[in-house]
Amino acid sequence: MSGNVDMKLIKSLKEKKFRDLNGLFTVEGEKMVREAQESGFEIVRLIHRDEIGEDAMKKISLMSSPSPVLAVIRKPEDKPIVVGDGLFIALDSVRDPGNMGTILRMADWFGVKAVFASQDSVEFYNPKVVQASMGAIFRVRAQYADIPALCRQFRAAGRPVYGTFLNGENIYGSPLSENGLIVMGNESNGISAETAAEVSARILIPKAEGSRAESLNVAIATAITLSEFARRK
Amino acid sequence: MSGNVDMKLIKSLKEKKFRDLNGLFTVEGEKMVREAQESGFEIVRLIHRDEIGEDAMKKISLMSSPSPVLAVIRKPEDKPIVVGDGLFIALDSVRDPGNMGTILRMADWFGVKAVFASQDSVEFYNPKVVQASMGAIFRVRAQYADIPALCRQFRAAGRPVYGTFLNGENIYGSPLSENGLIVMGNESNGISAETAAEVSARILIPKAEGSRAESLNVAIATAITLSEFARRK
Repeated sequence: MSGNVDMKLIKSLKEKKFRDLNGLFTVEGEKMVREAQESGFEIVRLIHRDEIGEDAMKKISLMSSPSPVLAVIRKPEDKPIVVGDGLFIALDSVRDPGNMGTILRMADWFGVKAVFASQDSVEFYNPKVVQASMGAIFRVRAQYADIPALCRQFRAAGRPVYGTFLNGENIYGSPLSENGLIVMGNESNGISAETAAEVSARILIPKAEGSRAESLNVAIATAITLSEFARRK
Repeated sequence: MSGNVDMKLIKSLKEKKFRDLNGLFTVEGEKMVREAQESGFEIVRLIHRDEIGEDAMKKISLMSSPSPVLAVIRKPEDKPIVVGDGLFIALDSVRDPGNMGTILRMADWFGVKAVFASQDSVEFYNPKVVQASMGAIFRVRAQYADIPALCRQFRAAGRPVYGTFLNGENIYGSPLSENGLIVMGNESNGISAETAAEVSARILIPKAEGSRAESLNVAIATAITLSEFARRK
């Protein structure tokens, strides 16, 4: 069953450092474990509370009341980036796990082909990201990339690179392609200057007349953008 | 300056019970305090770290490193609910502070007239709601209401009551009014049966063909809905 070393390793996966080192992460709960099993992800280990007892489960669990089941899962290997048909998302330094998880969840809903993120974005396998994704982490391709280089790759393939800016063109009236890359920026600073230089179509989500709001949350802006692309299709 | 009783009271405002009891809440940080000052909200007390010292500030602050300034603010009184022109939002048991704060923030952006919430929704003045609202809590009218009764009030005034449902009509092709109430439901269970019975227009945010996603986050669904209303205007 589960020796001490194993349990120690699993417990260590609560920290990013050890998730990176071992190429593993965990999910908890029957629903999430089932979603992992139905995906192509490799389940390295499945641990039931009934097998190891409440106390041992508490040690490896991140939940306040430990779930009946926990899966240790191997992080998928990055695939070569090929510009294909459809819409892709690039996250340029998105730091909040809730935002990234929510973006993965809507990417799954809207049929986005892949979500790329800069290396300084939050980790895809951070437990809060996995949780907020509601299983989408197992269905949406997600991997790290050099975002400016990715933009150049899309442009070289004749695909538009969209980005939202306060001085962009009203999204509701802009031409939008069925294929391309949508770049979303950091929670505080938006799209970095280096990435902004690679954007080929600057779009704006207009606010109501007289509104004194300064900005939208990045997940909200992503949702509105994806919805408008979906509507045109 | 600040006697012990005062500081004790302010510290107690970290808990909902005492915010309710005293009709007060706090915000921290120069930007948030400035937004509060620019609003019509009554600032009961303004406390600067330099006045009271780092240690005293730590005791009343919710931040890991206490902000230079904290304001104690009186919760506004509920105004009578009158059905006016424009769009209104009703939150039917929205429990997550991040979701409510994000919805207030986008309501501010899209010029929503008021955000109503059922009594079992999260508190508008929960610090995480205030934080996620990015100051919108001071600009958007927010108050509790009996949601089914509110729906009836809108319908009696000849205004549509919209709700998102998995068996609704595709939002992109539905007739949408400039005036009306948009009901959004609980994170797990959606709109309650009692409220659903009062919805006059059931709308659906369609997902991509082949998508296995089960749902969208409530703040995301609200954003897509508000964006589509804004686009038609």
